[in-house]
Order: sequence, then structure tokens, then C-alpha cells
Amino acid sequence: MIDQTVFADGAAFTEGRFRPIGQAGISLLDWGFTRSDLTYDVVHVKDGCFFRLDDHLDRFLSGIERLRLAIPESRDDIARILHHCVALAGLGDAYVAMAASRGRPMVPGSRRPADCNNHLIAYAVPWIDVIRPEIQARGAHVHVAGVPRVPDASSDPTIKNYRWGDLTQGLLEAEDAGCDTAVLLDQDGYLTEGPGFNVCLIEDGTLVTPDRGALHGITRQSVLELCAELGMPAHVAPVPASALETADEVFLCTTAGGIMPVARIGGRILGNDAPGPLSLKLKERYWQKHREGWHATRVDYMSLPAVELIG
Amino acid sequence: MIDQTVFADGAAFTEGRFRPIGQAGISLLDWGFTRSDLTYDVVHVKDGCFFRLDDHLDRFLSGIERLRLAIPESRDDIARILHHCVALAGLGDAYVAMAASRGRPMVPGSRRPADCNNHLIAYAVPWIDVIRPEIQARGAHVHVAGVPRVPDASSDPTIKNYRWGDLTQGLLEAEDAGCDTAVLLDQDGYLTEGPGFNVCLIEDGTLVTPDRGALHGITRQSVLELCAELGMPAHVAPVPASALETADEVFLCTTAGGIMPVARIGGRILGNDAPGPLSLKLKERYWQKHREGWHATRVDYMSLPAVELIG
Repeated sequence: MIDQTVFADGAAFTEGRFRPIGQAGISLLDWGFTRSDLTYDVVHVKDGCFFRLDDHLDRFLSGIERLRLAIPESRDDIARILHHCVALAGLGDAYVAMAASRGRPMVPGSRRPADCNNHLIAYAVPWIDVIRPEIQARGAHVHVAGVPRVPDASSDPTIKNYRWGDLTQGLLEAEDAGCDTAVLLDQDGYLTEGPGFNVCLIEDGTLVTPDRGALHGITRQSVLELCAELGMPAHVAPVPASALETADEVFLCTTAGGIMPVARIGGRILGNDAPGPLSLKLKERYWQKHREGWHATRVDYMSLPAVELIG
Repeated sequence: MIDQTVFADGAAFTEGRFRPIGQAGISLLDWGFTRSDLTYDVVHVKDGCFFRLDDHLDRFLSGIERLRLAIPESRDDIARILHHCVALAGLGDAYVAMAASRGRPMVPGSRRPADCNNHLIAYAVPWIDVIRPEIQARGAHVHVAGVPRVPDASSDPTIKNYRWGDLTQGLLEAEDAGCDTAVLLDQDGYLTEGPGFNVCLIEDGTLVTPDRGALHGITRQSVLELCAELGMPAHVAPVPASALETADEVFLCTTAGGIMPVARIGGRILGNDAPGPLSLKLKERYWQKHREGWHATRVDYMSLPAVELIG
């Protein structure tokens, strides 16, 4: 019999075993830490269902391959481990992460990535909003950071990573500016993304979101699908910083929070200093479709890992 | 009485306690991991003495301040913790690391760096050579990577960090090219550094090392001081990639290995396909001066942490 109360704060899978999140760490010598040499993904669970689990697994496995990582677990194994983490923690709404780390060299003294024991990390913790709900309600205040986004040529932003130096710098700038968060421009002055989210602009009823310097967000993909349904033109295209001066509405989007309207950006007050009507319409539709079972995979709460794999 | 045998593989300090390195990790939820939001430093111990401990502490504390981190430990505390780690592990030659991590928000749900519990991590493990001794002896084969170094404006390379995406990519390229390691150029074609080391070129008896895209290495600083002693001109200056075509000698330098000669770089065979004479002279002098007590701080092996702080 598994005592699930110890998993109340979250459940993790590391080194082939399930542990309470508070007891789960990564070795100080793991290159996933000392070189941030890993890729990760995050899927959310809302009302007992994963949202777009297959899409998240596709992106995760693509990143693993492009980084030349190879973990022992199959795609089905990963999915089962994610179900187990959510089930152990007993979470109806959850932030569910998976990471594939380079690990450590199995050949003593080696500095070759190919010599490492790549491994899977996963965990489920209670739901996280990148922008707190009360700020989503009033509309986020967003700083346009001075620090330029790391160029795609140096670090491919479509392989989801933890190397947030520029994004952290943007957050520190946002704090100085009294803002809630930041978006970054690239070196050529084009809009990219912010710490943990994509950015969408709406002008004259048309949505545009950056084609560079940004993750191919799965929430953003959902937004594009919603636009198609609603007959709203939408483009993934270059977005010069100047577009922020003329946009009617701006919103941020991410797995960890959904569609999050912006009220102020770069010193400019949008509309009525409140979430814009089309942003709200998309947000409402996004959650409505969740309730209708869109791209949903019900969490298997009944199946728990073998007792030998606990702790 | 402390059982030091459990520290044979290394000793770490995390969350205010000393633990065997194999039991020391960082939480999966720590921003030092999930955002690589930290700075670190590494000092070596050779023959029972730290080398340039004060310089490493200076650089570490400067990075902490520039990232707006604040850890509870004072400079003296950090030094004492490093001594304790080496002493617990009983190491005469050691790789000694210290890191200051952003930690986790103390305000639930906060995404503000200012709300986090910044903390110190430290550890000592047996000596590490970034380039294995047998490769140092024959001269390293170095790939000139196609991936450009992350620009200084996006990620300040003088704040030592774990965000190795570009450097890892360079290592993967080096593997494909059958090389031991890689150096990276910046977007403008100037030489920067490699994964864990600075680069120095010697041409017509004059040494030059890049002024951009690179850590202000303390081993490199030692090299510059040795050059001054030996009457050898040395400059920190822009180094175009073309300088690799005409250099008489190239070497890499780092705390984790010292001065490491290069025999081949970018497909070019240097001199006699072996370490160059001036590189060897600097290397010999570097270790000779170690033996003479240059910049040395003897490890205090007699003082161990209080038993309550163990494990």
C-alpha cells in the first residue's frame, strides 16, 4: 500500500524511482545542472485531463533527438510516468514537467557528451500560473527589455531549455520598471518571447505572433487553431518592436496559465487599461473548449507505480 | 567523531549542511536548475594549497552582486566552507566549486527573482582536467565551431555561468570532426573561448588572448603575469579567426587543468604537431611557481565542521 499523503506537494520521477517532490533533486555533478545540458517540456492537467499530451511528447522527443540525447524510456513509458506522477500527487489541476538530461560521464574524466548516461526526470506539482490570476484579470504590465534575446543561431529556442540568462535579466529590468514581466527583442529589434510565454498582438482584428527567437508554443498553436475556428486572421511572422506601438491588444500565452491579457506594454496603456475584448474572447473559448474535452487525455488515477519503485 | 570515509568521492555543502557528494543535489524546483539562474566559480587545490583563492572569491562575489543575489554567508564563511569541503574529503589535489543560486520563491506563486531564497552551494571533488593529461601531452586537437558564441549583450560571459548551450553544441561538432574540444567564434568572426577554458595564441613571440565573448579567466591572468616575468609581450585584444591561420602556437588555459597546449586547430597542424616551445615553457613555469607557493593558501585540514552540520 502506497502512502500518498507524502506526495501532497507533488510527485517526482528521478533515477528510475518515484519520490515526494521535496526529496527529488539532481546531482550537483549532473551536466543537466552544471552545463544546463538538457531539454524539457511542460504539459498541464486541468480538471483531471492532460491537455495536448501527444503534442508535448512530440516536441519533447524532437528536442531529445536534436540534442543527441537518448533516454532508456520509450514514449509510452514517459506518458505512463507522467500519469503516475499526477496520480501519486492526486492532483486535478497540475503543472507536469519532463526533462531529459545529459547526465554524467560513465567514462571517468571524460568531457564527451557521448559518454554520458542520459536520463529522464519528471514531476507533477499543483497548477502554476506564470502570471498570477489577479494580474491576468487586471491585465499584465509588461516591460520591453533592453537585454537582447540570445540569437537563434547560438541557442535554438525551439528546443525548450532552462538557459534563462537573458530572460532573467529581462525580469530584473521589469522589476526596476515596476512591471509584472518582460518581453525581449532580438538584436535586430524584432519581438521574440518572454520568460515562459509566447506573445501575440492583435491589430485591426488580425493576430500576429513572432516567427523568431521564440518557442513553438503549444498554447500558441491552440490560439492559432481558435483563430481559425473564429474566422480571425492570424499569422506567424516577423513582428518589429514598432508593432507594439500600434497594436490594439496584446496577450501572453503559455501552458502554465493559458491566455493572459496585457493592459500595459513598454510604457503604453492599451485600450481601457484592461484586457482587450478579442483577447478575452480567445481566453474564454480556450477554457470552454477545455471543458468540452478538446485535445484531452484523462489522467489514469487508478494506476499507481509498483511499490518497489517508490522512494 | 566524523566518519570521513563517506566523503572519499567528494564533500558538498548544500542547504547549510555538509554531505557526501553522492548525496548532494539541487531541488528540481530551484531556479538555479530550472532557469540556470546562478553564478559559480571553481578554484583548484594542488599539493594541499588553494591557488589564488582570493581572486576566485573576488570574482564569485562580483558575479553574485551583478546578478542581484544575496546569500547569507560572508566571504570568510565561504572560504571556511571551501576549506571544510576539501578537508572532509581529504584531498591533496582537488576541483573546488562554489555556486550561488537564486533558489525558490518564498512567496507562493511568485515569479519575481527578488522573492527567492538565494543560497550557497559548494563542493570539493578529486582533481579534474578539462583536457585529459595524455591529450595535453600530445597537444589537443581543436575544432573551430560553426555555432556562434552567445553575444556578450545577451549573456555576460564575465559572470561565470552554467548556460552552456552554445559550448555544448561546439562539443558535439568537435565530436563529429574527430577533435578533442572546440573553440567558438562570435557573430563577427572573432575568437572567444571554449567549453571551460580561455584560448591564447602566440605569434612571433607575442601572446594574444580574446577581449570579448570570454570569461576573465584567473589562469589566463596567471599566464599574463608569467609573460610579464619572462619579458614576453602579451595582449588582451580582438582576435580575428584568421589569427588561427598564422599563429605559431595555441594553448588553452583553465583552473581545471592549467595550461594545455594545442597541436591542431581548425584542420591546421601547428609546428611539429606537438605542444609548442613557448607554451611548454609557460606551462612548466606555471607549475614550478605552484611548487614555490605562488598565490597559495594552505588548506586547513585540521579544522572540520561541527558534527551537527554533517549529513
